[in-house]
Amino acid sequence: MKIYKAHIIYTPERDRFEVLENGYVAVDDDGRVAGVGSSLKALGCDDAEVTDFGNKLLIPAMNDVHVHAAQYHNQGIAMDLELLPWLDNYTFPEEMKFGSEEYAERIYRRFVNHLWRVGTMRSVVFATIHTEGTRWLMRHFEEAGMGAMVGKVAMNRNCPPALQESVEEYVEGFESLVNEYPGSEALVRPIVTPRFIPSCTPELLRACGEMARRHNLPVQSHLSENLSEIELVSQLEPESRGYADAYHSYGLLGPQPTVMAHCVWSDEAERRLLRDNGVMVAHCPTSNLNVASGMAPVATMLREGIKVGLGSDISGGHDFSLFRVMIYAIQVSKMHYQRSGHAVPFLSLSEAFWMATKSGGSFFGRVGSFEKGYDFDALVLDDSDLYPDDYSLLQRLERIIYTGDDRHIARRYCRGREIIAPLP
Amino acid sequence: MKIYKAHIIYTPERDRFEVLENGYVAVDDDGRVAGVGSSLKALGCDDAEVTDFGNKLLIPAMNDVHVHAAQYHNQGIAMDLELLPWLDNYTFPEEMKFGSEEYAERIYRRFVNHLWRVGTMRSVVFATIHTEGTRWLMRHFEEAGMGAMVGKVAMNRNCPPALQESVEEYVEGFESLVNEYPGSEALVRPIVTPRFIPSCTPELLRACGEMARRHNLPVQSHLSENLSEIELVSQLEPESRGYADAYHSYGLLGPQPTVMAHCVWSDEAERRLLRDNGVMVAHCPTSNLNVASGMAPVATMLREGIKVGLGSDISGGHDFSLFRVMIYAIQVSKMHYQRSGHAVPFLSLSEAFWMATKSGGSFFGRVGSFEKGYDFDALVLDDSDLYPDDYSLLQRLERIIYTGDDRHIARRYCRGREIIAPLP
Repeated sequence: MKIYKAHIIYTPERDRFEVLENGYVAVDDDGRVAGVGSSLKALGCDDAEVTDFGNKLLIPAMNDVHVHAAQYHNQGIAMDLELLPWLDNYTFPEEMKFGSEEYAERIYRRFVNHLWRVGTMRSVVFATIHTEGTRWLMRHFEEAGMGAMVGKVAMNRNCPPALQESVEEYVEGFESLVNEYPGSEALVRPIVTPRFIPSCTPELLRACGEMARRHNLPVQSHLSENLSEIELVSQLEPESRGYADAYHSYGLLGPQPTVMAHCVWSDEAERRLLRDNGVMVAHCPTSNLNVASGMAPVATMLREGIKVGLGSDISGGHDFSLFRVMIYAIQVSKMHYQRSGHAVPFLSLSEAFWMATKSGGSFFGRVGSFEKGYDFDALVLDDSDLYPDDYSLLQRLERIIYTGDDRHIARRYCRGREIIAPLP
Repeated sequence: MKIYKAHIIYTPERDRFEVLENGYVAVDDDGRVAGVGSSLKALGCDDAEVTDFGNKLLIPAMNDVHVHAAQYHNQGIAMDLELLPWLDNYTFPEEMKFGSEEYAERIYRRFVNHLWRVGTMRSVVFATIHTEGTRWLMRHFEEAGMGAMVGKVAMNRNCPPALQESVEEYVEGFESLVNEYPGSEALVRPIVTPRFIPSCTPELLRACGEMARRHNLPVQSHLSENLSEIELVSQLEPESRGYADAYHSYGLLGPQPTVMAHCVWSDEAERRLLRDNGVMVAHCPTSNLNVASGMAPVATMLREGIKVGLGSDISGGHDFSLFRVMIYAIQVSKMHYQRSGHAVPFLSLSEAFWMATKSGGSFFGRVGSFEKGYDFDALVLDDSDLYPDDYSLLQRLERIIYTGDDRHIARRYCRGREIIAPLP
């Protein structure tokens, strides 16, 4: 048992922070939270040794539920196109490079280190079609001790031939990774990853659905990001009642845990389908603005009972930090608030924080909170240069989120283990 | 004469970057650019001593044309209200503290240091009504060697009595600052600063217009930020043809150089008035999102020939960095692009950069470019941790803007002088 003392802040529910000034958290030998309390006595740990973080804050670590590892090189460039031409001109050419194991090893190492830097201890990741490259990404996460669901991408149409695999090649490559990473409780797991409907033939989509069922694995893809994309999907899937319905028809909308990125333009019927199938929306506001997609109605989704997590969506998004993505999520919700004449409320800070921690974390199991039984994924925040004495604990957290950066993250934990400078 | 060598990037025009790989810039003894060229010979400086910045980038420094020094303490908190209640609940209570010289001295020191950190060498600043406090802000800028137009704020209605001054008190306090800082070429100058029409009686607004004319001083205020505010102004100024027209009637819309913050909701007629009077719009996209005001149509304004600069608008805005404000300006313009069915173009990187440098800088004189005769206001950027060898020079700049922070600013110059750790 390990005990940590700090100002502890987390969101057991969407609409409220739990704040323990000078609180204690007990972590068992499996890295799970044994309890949180305001004294050692309350924890029943009177004689335990305590790691005291003094005036620092302790919060759950960040969970990024949509990010493209293979677009790391393009972070912060190529912001001059919309989705479909952006894929053709920037993204696909970059992804082709991951046929080289040497390139994949090198870029994915930078990528995992960058996630670590911004305090993201779990992520749901797109790699590329390349099995060997994807294996490097999984190895890097495993070596770092950080959690990830890693997707070897399925695609076989509407993209360069070098980024297409046959259904058989896809299944063979994917199953080899499944065999290497079999544990359903493991920190690093494969995830079924059809890129999106325009990139996959019906046969490949069916094979993806079959992979998810046969191996009981989660699924990720993209949904209703951009109006041109949606129009294209309606042409490709004339029988479907919509984009999500098309995924559904291929067995790619549950019951396996499923995350769909963006959902900027999902209408009421589509949102109902997402809710009824327990699908998590990966809200990626930085990306949706950069690629000129639009503004997802996230406050509405939350009130409808849809699961929502946050995604950096590198490199559509430019910023790895989920602190920054939280800010954007709130800002986008304020534009809906303004435009609706205040009919739609905007997101509170606790809602944004909850999406980045407990809500997004639920895709990985019991992750993203300090309730008993949760994995101890945590960040220790040092705001000593932000005049902490002038502010309340919640204001200190708000200021770190709005004005801070990775310099304010002093320590990072994933499932109880401190992660220090993950990869050389 | 001093000579600096680096990869030089600036925007002599709105729509293009000038890039000199391993270029030279010559700076005369008054701190003005004597010339830029690709060799010492081209500059006619064959035997000059050169400061060589190696593989670093050299760009014009940032110019923030709208920021509230007295809201420094509120940076990154209080994001849960719209403009008018936000003023009442957070902003005015904080501004009242600046009646204490000790408080003003301390907070303004932090504020100037923070501007320095993010590479902002010139700013157009709101202080408070307090003459002594405002004087501290001017002293701090002067001691730091950084340029600023500093506004003692005029207000006498619709705010707490402690933030109201009579017209006579305002004029007396303002003129005392004018007498202390008389030089029209000085780095630190006073600026006529009626807060906005709701805060000022017609008599006070007329006195402000009179101050601008009598002392030939620039003017700053707020315009058409929020729909409730605009409604309030239309009630307060029933005779006017609109918000800007009301300012105009008090002599506060030119011919003196004038900057109006926000202009989110300025209609065509108002925008024409701004253009015809040479008024600069301070575009503050972070603030406009945080305070749920809306999205200013900046790409449209630029195409209409309106001057536009960028403002951090601390603490409505949460981020001092004009790099970040540039990103938001582009993103907001992309939402107009999307919503207009691509009828309105979005801002290019060069347009955003130009607003933060040459366009905003024009409010201070010949500032914000490296053309001959411009003040040498510059930043040396070190992106050695961003894999510079993998990118073109313009991509390196784009990556610093989108993914970098103050750690990438190695040196800062204002009017030829290097500014090192400005205030203790």
